Amino acid sequence: MSTDVVRFDYSELSDWARTCLTEAGASGEVARNVSYYLLEGDLLGFSTHGLIRLLNNCQWLRDGKSLAKGQPVVLRERAAVANWDAQFLPGPYVVPQAIDAACKMAKQAGTGTVVVRRSQHVAALAAYLSIATDQGLVVSLMCSTPGQRAVAPFGGKEAVFSPNPFAVGVPSSNNPLLFDISFSMTAAGKVRQAKANGTRLPYKALIKPDGEWTDDPLTFFESPGSSIAPLGGEQLGYKGYGLTLFSEIWSMALSQYGRRQGSDDGDANSIWVQVIDPEAFGEKQKFLQQVDDLLADSRKSAPAVPEQPVRIPGEGAQKRKREQLQQGVSYSSATLKVLQHCAEFCGVDLPKAVNG
Amino acid sequence: MSTDVVRFDYSELSDWARTCLTEAGASGEVARNVSYYLLEGDLLGFSTHGLIRLLNNCQWLRDGKSLAKGQPVVLRERAAVANWDAQFLPGPYVVPQAIDAACKMAKQAGTGTVVVRRSQHVAALAAYLSIATDQGLVVSLMCSTPGQRAVAPFGGKEAVFSPNPFAVGVPSSNNPLLFDISFSMTAAGKVRQAKANGTRLPYKALIKPDGEWTDDPLTFFESPGSSIAPLGGEQLGYKGYGLTLFSEIWSMALSQYGRRQGSDDGDANSIWVQVIDPEAFGEKQKFLQQVDDLLADSRKSAPAVPEQPVRIPGEGAQKRKREQLQQGVSYSSATLKVLQHCAEFCGVDLPKAVNG
Repeated sequence: MSTDVVRFDYSELSDWARTCLTEAGASGEVARNVSYYLLEGDLLGFSTHGLIRLLNNCQWLRDGKSLAKGQPVVLRERAAVANWDAQFLPGPYVVPQAIDAACKMAKQAGTGTVVVRRSQHVAALAAYLSIATDQGLVVSLMCSTPGQRAVAPFGGKEAVFSPNPFAVGVPSSNNPLLFDISFSMTAAGKVRQAKANGTRLPYKALIKPDGEWTDDPLTFFESPGSSIAPLGGEQLGYKGYGLTLFSEIWSMALSQYGRRQGSDDGDANSIWVQVIDPEAFGEKQKFLQQVDDLLADSRKSAPAVPEQPVRIPGEGAQKRKREQLQQGVSYSSATLKVLQHCAEFCGVDLPKAVNG
Repeated sequence: MSTDVVRFDYSELSDWARTCLTEAGASGEVARNVSYYLLEGDLLGFSTHGLIRLLNNCQWLRDGKSLAKGQPVVLRERAAVANWDAQFLPGPYVVPQAIDAACKMAKQAGTGTVVVRRSQHVAALAAYLSIATDQGLVVSLMCSTPGQRAVAPFGGKEAVFSPNPFAVGVPSSNNPLLFDISFSMTAAGKVRQAKANGTRLPYKALIKPDGEWTDDPLTFFESPGSSIAPLGGEQLGYKGYGLTLFSEIWSMALSQYGRRQGSDDGDANSIWVQVIDPEAFGEKQKFLQQVDDLLADSRKSAPAVPEQPVRIPGEGAQKRKREQLQQGVSYSSATLKVLQHCAEFCGVDLPKAVNG
């Protein structure tokens, strides 16, 4: 075990995080959800969107930037859709409710869609997918950030969009297929990480104000700074640009809450949730067989590098979760500092490390 | 006007294409739709999926590989979804019906989804988007090809998937946003085109059986041949791999018709159609304003190359359509040969070129 990784017992860490949130003012139900889903992000390996965001969540609660209790308001609904105003309730409290509502609609109508405005930061979309897949349902999630401009349109050098994630969960006969990707060449968190580590990005993902491409993370923080390029890069960036418009329209435009409304909303998100019930289209077993076939075909493709077999999206994350539940949830020393800061902020001592 | 481009009057060409289809056995309604939507592909600039596919369509009708008349069979339905078996009716006849049905469901339930198995080749998804956007509705389309394996999973070198298109149409206060992209680094048609022209691909989009990346189109036709890489390439191909699985599951797995069922179906497709009614979420004008804002922001981003302003997806295609309706629909000499072959096959003379 690497000496610069600290591990905590899952239950002890979960109790600690929940208590921090309660101390910061959250209701019991809000605290339970926010601690659970942030920690789920860490378990699955989305470490930039795990408990490292607990301090932010506690600060937002103290500052009134997150609502500590309450329910989203339903603005409009039909048989298969709803538009909610979350009034800045924490994302990890709002998203599971939106997925639950979408699951109920899907079981009736075949699909269920909930768009949400003014959800406080949702953290890792991957953390929520199993709510639907555990029920045999298919789910897709997207979100955008009205207060953020980091990604340029294809052909442009000025940032217009947020680096929007797209996450998908699909049940199979074995483990579900899970992925959570952004439609841009990198995420703002990875640029910050490279800057902190004093390294370059692994490839040229940024466009400087002079129109040149660069892998230098420092240019992102200059004024004017560089912008993140859409997925596809210099040749195929029109695809990432189209996908980014897709994610911004499906989340912001449908929820009717975009950059004109939310430019001062910080990390708060506009969200798209859609759940599909495969049984609305045919027998459940036949759907699962189709998914099994696709995943088996993928796995059988001979690897380009012999010792690296093709992987199924989500299998690494689910393995990491099982390991961390057994051996303890691991944090880098940099993240540990943020957790310690949060412990002080809330006045709740961190549990002892299990490898301390 | 370039001498190697031939132009035909739109109405004359449309009449000719419809008559060819009727001579090949299509019902009047089938002939009207297939000729209209193939020609629409040409008008919008999707020349690999325009009238160049008319000969195929006529051959399939003669050979009984396309059904010449009839209706898709509804296998299952709920308030917001349906699963259809198109029994190999031509794609350009089936897709507009599926979009119409999805529009009707969306106006009631908020969204409408139709998945379709055994549609004969759908040609250009872009050609169908305005059916929904003209009604103020939002649409997304995907399809996959059970009989085709051309795209490798990320990390693999053996083809598993088809190069699946994803098309989106969104109304705005002015022209709709329209795009139609594949989730792979290139399309099989572009590889064939490069081979025919004796050129390399513009970048390394193929993975050879030895695991090396190449821009040599000839490798694609060897046995064993190279595979097309998923969008994102060597660094970010896991994103295109995830998106490809998404498109295959949403089209094949939900329609319950995949490669185990349709490996001998040639170019026939499994299809996903989803229509969203923005008015289910709030006032129509506010939705349009959101889209207008996003497109205006995109357009305002300073271009990386000063003389190339940022473009809105679909604006080039719509300009091309207006020009071709005025000046005639243009074809390369290579495509003209296919049209002449089709004229002979059906015994219907091509109209005179307007620039002949």
